[in-house]
Amino acid sequence: MSVHQESLTFTTRGRGSVPVTEAVNRVIRQSGITTGTCHVFQHHTSASLLITENADPDVRRDLETILARLAPDGDPAYHHDMEGDDDMAAHARAMLTHNDLTVPVTEGRASLGTWQGIFLLEHRYAGHQRRVTVTVQGE
Amino acid sequence: MSVHQESLTFTTRGRGSVPVTEAVNRVIRQSGITTGTCHVFQHHTSASLLITENADPDVRRDLETILARLAPDGDPAYHHDMEGDDDMAAHARAMLTHNDLTVPVTEGRASLGTWQGIFLLEHRYAGHQRRVTVTVQGE
Amino acid sequence: MSVHQESLTFTTRGRGSVPVTEAVNRVIRQSGITTGTCHVFQHHTSASLLITENADPDVRRDLETILARLAPDGDPAYHHDMEGDDDMAAHARAMLTHNDLTVPVTEGRASLGTWQGIFLLEHRYAGHQRRVTVTVQGE
Repeated sequence: MSVHQESLTFTTRGRGSVPVTEAVNRVIRQSGITTGTCHVFQHHTSASLLITENADPDVRRDLETILARLAPDGDPAYHHDMEGDDDMAAHARAMLTHNDLTVPVTEGRASLGTWQGIFLLEHRYAGHQRRVTVTVQGE
Repeated sequence: MSVHQESLTFTTRGRGSVPVTEAVNRVIRQSGITTGTCHVFQHHTSASLLITENADPDVRRDLETILARLAPDGDPAYHHDMEGDDDMAAHARAMLTHNDLTVPVTEGRASLGTWQGIFLLEHRYAGHQRRVTVTVQGE
Repeated sequence: MSVHQESLTFTTRGRGSVPVTEAVNRVIRQSGITTGTCHVFQHHTSASLLITENADPDVRRDLETILARLAPDGDPAYHHDMEGDDDMAAHARAMLTHNDLTVPVTEGRASLGTWQGIFLLEHRYAGHQRRVTVTVQGE
């Protein structure tokens, strides 16, 4: 067994999702590992990761509608609002989604279902540089 | 260290939960690994995984009540509704729960707490065949 | 590659969060592993894990406000209420957060972002002893 680790940086354009499946598969190919796991971790408290439907962009639009209800921007109940209306909502959206994901590696690729894509979610209004570490382990 | 990977298929009977702890423990036994981790991944965008209380079925009934509020079926705000009222709600329920889980392997078994069970959640009204990949890594 | 596993116990003081990053880093140092992953798992159905902002405690206070809305205590719709108003709400809060987390290990430490901390969340009103298993894998 061996381990292979790389850090990647993605530029977001404000709130929304960035597909990262291809970048993750490139790291898996670099690793030479054919059977094992691939761990994806993002290093920020106002962003997160999600595996969801990769075909119809309306799915991600509707997930946005739902997150906006569950973690509303600029809620007067929030105490943490130094960076604006999206500040606390961003932390809450991160809690309700995923800071890290692991996918199986099979035959040298991320073994995702037909309709599954891996997305980096930006929860702030402004675009940011977001760092992601990918760790592949296996044989 | 070694890695052992198997794919399993579970048949769901529509929205609800299917216990998978025993099937996961069978894969761990097959692996011969006694100390490490067991990763469980499901390959669909309308299903998910959850570790929750395994004794009183009312817990899963009440979690259903809560998910139905957080991600209501047939919400007129949704744009993605090609496959019916449960289509978009299923993707949202998947987001709010877990696409993959990892449990420690200790003494050759999934090291779960007394009341913890691993469940595959079906979020569509209709039953489906759902594929799950289990990857055990360790010594 | 090697694997190192330790069980830790944390005492909670009722609903709220306990920082566990330092304890996790101690296990990583014990393991001698410098590159790989660190898996953190908690063994209870009324507690969970979360990576969130570690600087301003108002963030965790506001996350509490949000969780109290999404999974209200003592909801008359719940059937599972044997242990009180916080019983079912605790299971639901656990579902909406995370039972296990994995963080990359880089240069012998948990590779967290500047503002990220790992917290054990207690969802019951009363304090409990909570067991956490940490498994480090890598080189």
